[in-house]
Amino acid sequence: MNSFAVGVDLGGTNMRIAAVERGGTQLATLQAATDLKRGRDLILAELCSGVRDLVQRFAPDRQLIGIGVGVPGIIDLETGTVHSAANLPGWSDYPVRQELEKRLQVPVVLENDANCAAMGEQWLGAGQGVDDLCMITLGTGVGGGFVVRGRPWHGLMGMAGELGHMTVVPDGTPCGCGSRGCLEQYASATAIKRMALEAVASNQAPGLTRAVAENPGFDARAVFDCYRQGDPAARAIFESVGSALGIAMANLVNALNLPLHVIGGGVAKAWEAFSPALFRELTRRSIVFRAGEFRKVRHKATMVVPTDLHGSAGVLGAARLALLLEQPSTWRSEAV
Amino acid sequence: MNSFAVGVDLGGTNMRIAAVERGGTQLATLQAATDLKRGRDLILAELCSGVRDLVQRFAPDRQLIGIGVGVPGIIDLETGTVHSAANLPGWSDYPVRQELEKRLQVPVVLENDANCAAMGEQWLGAGQGVDDLCMITLGTGVGGGFVVRGRPWHGLMGMAGELGHMTVVPDGTPCGCGSRGCLEQYASATAIKRMALEAVASNQAPGLTRAVAENPGFDARAVFDCYRQGDPAARAIFESVGSALGIAMANLVNALNLPLHVIGGGVAKAWEAFSPALFRELTRRSIVFRAGEFRKVRHKATMVVPTDLHGSAGVLGAARLALLLEQPSTWRSEAV
Repeated sequence: MNSFAVGVDLGGTNMRIAAVERGGTQLATLQAATDLKRGRDLILAELCSGVRDLVQRFAPDRQLIGIGVGVPGIIDLETGTVHSAANLPGWSDYPVRQELEKRLQVPVVLENDANCAAMGEQWLGAGQGVDDLCMITLGTGVGGGFVVRGRPWHGLMGMAGELGHMTVVPDGTPCGCGSRGCLEQYASATAIKRMALEAVASNQAPGLTRAVAENPGFDARAVFDCYRQGDPAARAIFESVGSALGIAMANLVNALNLPLHVIGGGVAKAWEAFSPALFRELTRRSIVFRAGEFRKVRHKATMVVPTDLHGSAGVLGAARLALLLEQPSTWRSEAV
Repeated sequence: MNSFAVGVDLGGTNMRIAAVERGGTQLATLQAATDLKRGRDLILAELCSGVRDLVQRFAPDRQLIGIGVGVPGIIDLETGTVHSAANLPGWSDYPVRQELEKRLQVPVVLENDANCAAMGEQWLGAGQGVDDLCMITLGTGVGGGFVVRGRPWHGLMGMAGELGHMTVVPDGTPCGCGSRGCLEQYASATAIKRMALEAVASNQAPGLTRAVAENPGFDARAVFDCYRQGDPAARAIFESVGSALGIAMANLVNALNLPLHVIGGGVAKAWEAFSPALFRELTRRSIVFRAGEFRKVRHKATMVVPTDLHGSAGVLGAARLALLLEQPSTWRSEAV
């Protein structure tokens, strides 16, 4: 009997739920608008209802392995609780995993959303065939996740992947985290909009000024539209995005020499606009990247690519994590 | 019968060879001045002679597992050859491991020197009891190595750990690697001497000017002596060292949330001079470090500490790698 899992991606505006077979075949996907701020109990009820719907449809012919749930917060893996998630009011110290297991009567895996996206890309997206990768998500903020030897890398406190707070300009734009010049201040959708409004305020960007006047919902997407129409100020903004990403990527490549870096999140749709500056900066700043580029070292290169799965990476990665419950890790700590 | 291994640390000025028991007891250590530029054959002959000496002394009562050799260059693990090692003329594409195994008739492990130092610290030094750590070595240049789940992390091309070329000041001092503002330009012994000579040239550093005039061998160590005597220009230089290190460490901590970072190399002796600025910058720039500092997250903190083993880390780590030959890794790639 074929086995399957259900993945859940709990995003700030949408919840996605998907039933996925062991081989990667997506059986069905549900999507619902969610406002996480409506509170924990409503969200959990909707989540369980969606999961039950899919389980009832596919469980008769297949073995359900478990449920994977990706949430935008720091996970305490041992207790199955959520730490310090600004967008999940009321979830702190609530036994999410235990509660879901009680309601659904199947094993539940709880994971950070960026780690889920990284696992999704590794399983069915840009990272197929690669054991180790780094995922950077450029959205409202900048997040990230690592897959190391086929599993999410959590770090000591489950806080690995805070790539949005890597310093790219030591004396740069102040960041809400208390530092200055964080990647998030240059490469998020929020930053793109801010830089556009700064350009408008400087009276040096007639194209953007027109776009702001015409569009009450002016946002990063609108800046990208201006770029596509050849607007020089929009072009300069995406140069900044790419340069900042290039510095951060160069640091990661020099440190870890991972085979693959996947850039996802909504801003990844502007790949054509920011990637030339990204690769220019990365090539200049990373001897390790250049060694791969020039194929000097055994014909292997470090790659940086846009997401293959877009919005589906998270839900697929969540399902993948549940399926891995069948294959316990064979890692063990080395006894010294 | 107790087992042991012989470790070799091939440095730019010294070669260390040590016989070490499985439990970590150091049986004996040999040290010889080496000038790697004298050429491959002489170095290899000396290395083999030292190893044979120790093997003959200790093999009768113990089982020899193998020889671990740390070299300052990028290793091709599959072929056991050395890539692009500026200080090892004539070694490129020479089958080092195969040649040593032929001459010594025991299994040989070849490894990058910084990775050996990281393994040494994890085994017997500052990293005891920790599976994952990052080592930064501040010497003539700045190098680094990672231990992940008890083993060296090599990255795709064996080039992981180029921490000296992480960007800390995007438009900073030009670096030989082709970039600007690399960590190595602020935190190496070479950089400390350069910054001191720049201060002397500016006519703003009477203490350092005197030290340079009195000491024909003026170097980073002499700058540290001036610091200890309260010289303000020397203090400012170590502030720069610490700030640059703090930015680089903050990026690593935010990205990976490793439990431990060990700072080694000769410059680590000036820990008291640069560490206050390091921690100031790290605290300011790393939300992940702060989360640990304030013990908010399950009472675990990311640590940054100076080396415990100093010059012995490399040779002990090399021996450790040979001892691990007895315990093949249990990792496997996940089948997707």
